[in-house]
Amino acid sequence: MFESAELGHTIDKETYKQEIPALREALLDAQYDLAELKKFPVIILIGGVDGAGKGETANLLNEWMDPRNIHTHAFGQPSDEEAERPHMWRYWRALPPKGKIGINFGSWYTDPIIKRAYGEIKNEGLTKALDEIVRFEKMLTDEGALVLKFWFHLSREKQKNRLDKLEKDPHTRWRVTDLDKKHLKMYDEFRTISEHVLRETSTAAAPWIIVEGYDANYRNLTVGKQLLEAMRKRLDTPESKVHIASAPPLIAPVDSLHILSKLDLSKKIDKKEYEQKLEDFQGKLNTLTRDPRFKKISVVCVFEGSDAAGKGGSIRRITQAIDARIFSVNPIAAPTEEERAQPYLWRFWRHVPRHGRVTVFDRSWYGRVLVERVEGFCSEYDWMRAYGEINDFEEQLSRKQFVVVKFWLQISKEEQLRRFEERKSIAFKRFKITEEDWRNREKWESYEMAVCDMIDRTSTDYAPWTIIEANDKNFARIKILKTLCDRIEKILDQIKPEK
Amino acid sequence: MFESAELGHTIDKETYKQEIPALREALLDAQYDLAELKKFPVIILIGGVDGAGKGETANLLNEWMDPRNIHTHAFGQPSDEEAERPHMWRYWRALPPKGKIGINFGSWYTDPIIKRAYGEIKNEGLTKALDEIVRFEKMLTDEGALVLKFWFHLSREKQKNRLDKLEKDPHTRWRVTDLDKKHLKMYDEFRTISEHVLRETSTAAAPWIIVEGYDANYRNLTVGKQLLEAMRKRLDTPESKVHIASAPPLIAPVDSLHILSKLDLSKKIDKKEYEQKLEDFQGKLNTLTRDPRFKKISVVCVFEGSDAAGKGGSIRRITQAIDARIFSVNPIAAPTEEERAQPYLWRFWRHVPRHGRVTVFDRSWYGRVLVERVEGFCSEYDWMRAYGEINDFEEQLSRKQFVVVKFWLQISKEEQLRRFEERKSIAFKRFKITEEDWRNREKWESYEMAVCDMIDRTSTDYAPWTIIEANDKNFARIKILKTLCDRIEKILDQIKPEK
Repeated sequence: MFESAELGHTIDKETYKQEIPALREALLDAQYDLAELKKFPVIILIGGVDGAGKGETANLLNEWMDPRNIHTHAFGQPSDEEAERPHMWRYWRALPPKGKIGINFGSWYTDPIIKRAYGEIKNEGLTKALDEIVRFEKMLTDEGALVLKFWFHLSREKQKNRLDKLEKDPHTRWRVTDLDKKHLKMYDEFRTISEHVLRETSTAAAPWIIVEGYDANYRNLTVGKQLLEAMRKRLDTPESKVHIASAPPLIAPVDSLHILSKLDLSKKIDKKEYEQKLEDFQGKLNTLTRDPRFKKISVVCVFEGSDAAGKGGSIRRITQAIDARIFSVNPIAAPTEEERAQPYLWRFWRHVPRHGRVTVFDRSWYGRVLVERVEGFCSEYDWMRAYGEINDFEEQLSRKQFVVVKFWLQISKEEQLRRFEERKSIAFKRFKITEEDWRNREKWESYEMAVCDMIDRTSTDYAPWTIIEANDKNFARIKILKTLCDRIEKILDQIKPEK
Repeated sequence: MFESAELGHTIDKETYKQEIPALREALLDAQYDLAELKKFPVIILIGGVDGAGKGETANLLNEWMDPRNIHTHAFGQPSDEEAERPHMWRYWRALPPKGKIGINFGSWYTDPIIKRAYGEIKNEGLTKALDEIVRFEKMLTDEGALVLKFWFHLSREKQKNRLDKLEKDPHTRWRVTDLDKKHLKMYDEFRTISEHVLRETSTAAAPWIIVEGYDANYRNLTVGKQLLEAMRKRLDTPESKVHIASAPPLIAPVDSLHILSKLDLSKKIDKKEYEQKLEDFQGKLNTLTRDPRFKKISVVCVFEGSDAAGKGGSIRRITQAIDARIFSVNPIAAPTEEERAQPYLWRFWRHVPRHGRVTVFDRSWYGRVLVERVEGFCSEYDWMRAYGEINDFEEQLSRKQFVVVKFWLQISKEEQLRRFEERKSIAFKRFKITEEDWRNREKWESYEMAVCDMIDRTSTDYAPWTIIEANDKNFARIKILKTLCDRIEKILDQIKPEK
C-alpha cells in the first residue's frame, strides 16, 4: 500500500508558487459555502509516521483557510473526566457541528496501532478495534459527515533522514523526542501494522489517502487539492442525491405471533406484598449504590413504553432509593439546535455519566426506531442503521463497566384507555392528555411492530431488554427494581473489593 | 443570627401528615408551570452544619417533585479539567437552564468557609471571596434566576447528639466521618465564621433562609413551604414587573473630547519593516507558547472593532504563529437555544480553555455593551450591569494565570467606506457587504460613544484594553503581535522554571 508513497514525489518551488494562490482562494470559497449552508461537518484525520509533516499540515490548513471555522484537536492523555467514560466519549465530544471543519490530530486510530505495536493487544484485539472504527465511521458518513483520512508516510531512510535534520537544527531540535527515536527503531513493526490498519479501514465512504510526507510542497499541494475536491464535490451534490442507500422493508410476522402478544398482562401483586418488597428492594438498591465498588461502575437505565404506561412513577421508585447527589434523570424531548447539528447519538453521548453515578433516560435513543420510524420522521435507511449503531453504543458502555438496563413497559390497549379517561378527570395540569396521545393510540399496531423489531434487534447479552407487564403498576415497579438490583449486584460481584 | 434556629422547633407527626399531601401537589404544580413556561431557572443552595439534614433535604425535594426536572450537584474535589480553570467554572457548568431546578449541595460557599476555619485565608481573603459571591448572585438574580439559599443549623449539643445517634445505628454509622468529628470540635469557629458569611451574603434578591435542622418534620415542612412560596410568587408575577431596576443614563462628554477622537490614525509602517517585524514577533510568539512554563498559563484574546477594521486578518497573523493543536478561535454569532436559556456570560464561560492553550474570541462578551446597547437588544439596566459582571469575569480569569488581552481596532469613517467599496468590487462571496454593514455605519457616533464607555469602564490593571490604530493594516498587526508577546512574556517571567 505504501509503494506509491515511497517514489520520492516532489513539486518544485515554481510550480508550487504558481498553484497555491488559486487553491487557497478555492478552499476559502468552499469553506465559506460550508459554513453558510451548514449541511454537513468535515472531519479530517491526520495520521502517519513521525516526522512526516502531520503537525505542519494541521497548521497549514489553519493558515490557508479561516481558522474561525476550524477546530483542531490533539488527543493526548485522557483527562480524568474522559478516563471514566467509554474511550470514544472524547471523540464524540470533539465532533465538529455541521458547517465546521474538525481536524483530529491523533485520532481513534492511535490507540489500536500503538497497543498492537507494543504487544498490549493481539491481532484479535486489533481486528475488533478496527471493526468498531469502521462501524463508527460508517455512522458518521451515514449521518452526512465528510470524513477525510490522511496518512503521511515516509520510507525508513527518509524518516531517519528527516529526524536527523530536525535534530541538527537548534530551532527544531526540541521536536525530536526519545519516543520518536524509539519508534524509528520499530519502523518495520509499525509499517506492517499500519498497512494492515489502513487496508481494513479504507472504505468507500471513508477511504484513506496516503501521502508521501518528505517533500513539503508535494504534501501540501496534495492535501489541499484533495480537500478541495472532496468538499466541492459534496457541496455541489444535491442533498437528495447524497444518500442513495435503501433498506429492505421489515414485515410483520406472517402468523401475527410476537413477543408482546405472548405477554401475560394480568400479572399482579397485592398491596401488602408490594409494600414489603418495595422496602426491601429500595433498601437493597440503596446499599448497592453505597458499596465502595460502586465507584468503579456506572448505571444507565433506559425507560421506554407506551403513553401512560407508568414510566414516571417507576423512575421515582428508583430515585427515591438513591442519593440525589449521584443520580440524574434525563427526560428526552425534541433535540436542541446544537444537537441537531450533530450525529443522532451525540445528544445521548453528552449525558453519559462518570463512574459512580446512575443516569436514567426517560425515553432514549430508541426514539429513532420507535416514534421516528412509525411517524416517518426519518428515512427507513436511517432507522434501520440505528439498530447497529445503538448496539455499538451500548457495547462501548458495557465494556467500560456500565450496567445498561433497558425497560419496555407494556400495557394493554384497554388499560391505556382507562388511564387516559382517569387522567382527563384529574385536575392536575401535568396530567393533561394531549391530542397527540390520542393520535398515537390510533397507531397501536404500528408501534407494537416497531417494539418487537426493536427488542429482536437490540436485546443483547451485555444490554438485554426487560419487558415489563405494566397493567398492574405495583407489579411493574417491583419487577423493575428487582431487575435493576440483580444487574448491579452481578457486576459488583465481579469486582474485587479493595483492601 | 442563629437564635431562632436553636429554639427547638418541632412539628408533630399528625400535623405533618396532614399538611404534606397538599404541599406536594402544589409543589408539583409549580414545577410543572416552571417547566412549561421556561422563564427562569431555580437555583437552590444547601449549606449548613454536618448532620443537620442537608443530604436528606436534597433527596426529599427530588422525591416530592419530579426528578426529571431537577439536577442535583455535589461538588467535591475538582476534576483536572476543573482545576485548570477559574474556580467558578464548575458552578457555571452546573447552572440549570430556564425551566429547571438545580440543587447545589456544597456550593461556592464551601471553600471560603472551610479555608477561613482552617486559617488558610484571613478575614481579608474571606471578605474578598464573599464580595465576589454577592456580585455573582446579583448577576444570577439580575438574569432572572430564582436563588434560594437554605442554611441548616444545629446547636452544638444537638449536633453532637445527632452524630452520636447516627453512629450508634449500624445502618447510618457509615455517614459519620472523621472529618465530621473534627468539625464538631471546631463548632465555635465554624459558627462564628458562618454567621459572618451569612450576614455578608444575605441580600434582598438572594437572602439566606436559616432552618433548624434537628426535627425532620419541621425542617421538611419549612423547606417545602418556602420553596413553594418563592416559586409561586415569581411564577405569578408578570415578567414586566420582575425587574424594576433602572440605570442612570450615560451621556456623551459635553466637550466631545474622547479617547477615539484623540487617536492618530495616520500611523503607518513600511512594507520592509513590516515583514521583518512580522517574522520577529511571530517567531517570538511561537517560542513563548513552546516555553515549558506556558503549560501553567492560558491566553484569552478578545478582538472587537468596527466592521472591516481587519479583525480576521489580525487573528490569522496570531494563529499562523501558534501550533494549531493549542489554539482555538471562537467567532461569536447569535446565541443558540441552549445559550439563551442561561445567563448572558454562560456562553463565554463554556469556551474558557484549560492551561497551556490560547483562545481567541472574534467579537466577545463585549457585544452586550456595544451592539446590544446601540441597537437596543437589551435594556439599559442589563448593559449597565454588564460592565461590572465582565470585570468580575476577567478578574477571575486573570487570577487563574490567564493572560486576558483585549484589542479594539479603530479605523476612520473614510477608511471604512474605502474598504466597503473595495469589497464590493471583489468577487469572493465571503467578502460580501450586507445591508447591515451599511446600517451600522449610520450609527457611527452611537458606536463611538459605546466604545469609549466600554474602555472607560472595563480597562483594568489585570485586563487592559489596547486600542489599535488600524487604518494601516500592517501597523495594526505588528502592534497587536507586540502587545500579545509582551503580555505573555511578563506573566511567564513571574513563573519560576521547573528544575
